[in-house]
Amino acid sequence: MARDNPFGAVRALTFDVFGTLVDWRESIAREARDMLVPRGLKRDWHFFADRWRLRYQPALEKVRRGTRPWTRLDELHRENLLAVLKEFEIDELDEATIGELNRAWHRLDPWPDVVEGLGRLKRKYILAALSNGNVGLMVNLARYAQLPWDVILGAEIAGAYKPQPEVYDRAAAILDLAPGQCMMVAAHADDLQAARRRGFRTAYVPRPEEWGPKRTRAIPEGTEFDIRAVNFYELVARLGC
Amino acid sequence: MARDNPFGAVRALTFDVFGTLVDWRESIAREARDMLVPRGLKRDWHFFADRWRLRYQPALEKVRRGTRPWTRLDELHRENLLAVLKEFEIDELDEATIGELNRAWHRLDPWPDVVEGLGRLKRKYILAALSNGNVGLMVNLARYAQLPWDVILGAEIAGAYKPQPEVYDRAAAILDLAPGQCMMVAAHADDLQAARRRGFRTAYVPRPEEWGPKRTRAIPEGTEFDIRAVNFYELVARLGC
Repeated sequence: MARDNPFGAVRALTFDVFGTLVDWRESIAREARDMLVPRGLKRDWHFFADRWRLRYQPALEKVRRGTRPWTRLDELHRENLLAVLKEFEIDELDEATIGELNRAWHRLDPWPDVVEGLGRLKRKYILAALSNGNVGLMVNLARYAQLPWDVILGAEIAGAYKPQPEVYDRAAAILDLAPGQCMMVAAHADDLQAARRRGFRTAYVPRPEEWGPKRTRAIPEGTEFDIRAVNFYELVARLGC
Repeated sequence: MARDNPFGAVRALTFDVFGTLVDWRESIAREARDMLVPRGLKRDWHFFADRWRLRYQPALEKVRRGTRPWTRLDELHRENLLAVLKEFEIDELDEATIGELNRAWHRLDPWPDVVEGLGRLKRKYILAALSNGNVGLMVNLARYAQLPWDVILGAEIAGAYKPQPEVYDRAAAILDLAPGQCMMVAAHADDLQAARRRGFRTAYVPRPEEWGPKRTRAIPEGTEFDIRAVNFYELVARLGC
């Protein structure tokens, strides 16, 4: 095994989810459209999705900095949704509809290579969700998108948001693995760099359409990953599965 | 659904593992025998398994009472193993062998109704491990015994050992469910009673051979469960799956 595979020590693959495994932009646009068009609302639903997602990092940052106590992502999503609805001048939704729209984040479609890829990787590796999404959200999303987790770890288990080091440290510790036995898989360089600083191996799988066509983000120069794969089929091959 | 099923509000089934899903006694006896007989050791390996397991509750109890800090089950198992080896006058094992023998708890066979039963229950319910086993142990055991968890919760996630109330409270909270939307499934009345006190529904599935033939334990009188099922096939039927 070690002869065929330079990552023979790796036992667990830890995955970023939003953007890396699932296409949040198309899915959120679809959910918003399907829920709100029948109410006579007409908006650019992809733009709606983008604006909602753009409020994500600033909301996490308040928790990271400690200016607000631990708050799970479902709640941050909801606060951000209220702000975006205001921005889009949508003020007629009742509580039940707002809650249902917020749970759109529990119903995101996987990129087309993901389900088969994870199934093959699972034969050899422990598969762990390592997302900033809370556990309940991850459970519902995995059931919807058929993500075959062995275990859901991540922000809520660590009480910290990626790229804070505690998230990676806690994942390795709870699996009783050395950091070098874990490989972070993500479409985002900052997540991978943070994992690498904690001793994880890294696999970069870019998702150039995460933010829509022609919105590819540049990778910071000098960024090193153990693996770069164009998709999960290549990742499977590189990991010898 | 609610018409066919009096438990229509239940969204998640939370499972005890050792004894309820897996036959620790036969599995530990087999592992010990397979590892130690080739070294010329002859003992009653079922009795060895029983003695190892009998040190389980007293070890947890020290953590529950706070006389020792949080310690994961893998470590408690290891301390207990050292004591049992001494009891059985086995003193020639090296560290690697002791570690491998301790990981016998990661390789326990499921009772014959479990894998099919869980597969059918998963179509309708979130399946959560709610064990005193640590997460890493549960991950390895699930891969070995093909337990199709949606999520692994339990003692390590709560920082407390069943039947402490925190374990049940934390499970419901992390799933964003009311306690009444959770049903504890176990072969042990004390676990179910504790879950019930926290508002969980309860399903009792006795495993009369957990401690070997003719060792059935009496259920305390007055104990009430929402469901009593002789095995997982009956549980599946009672839950309308």
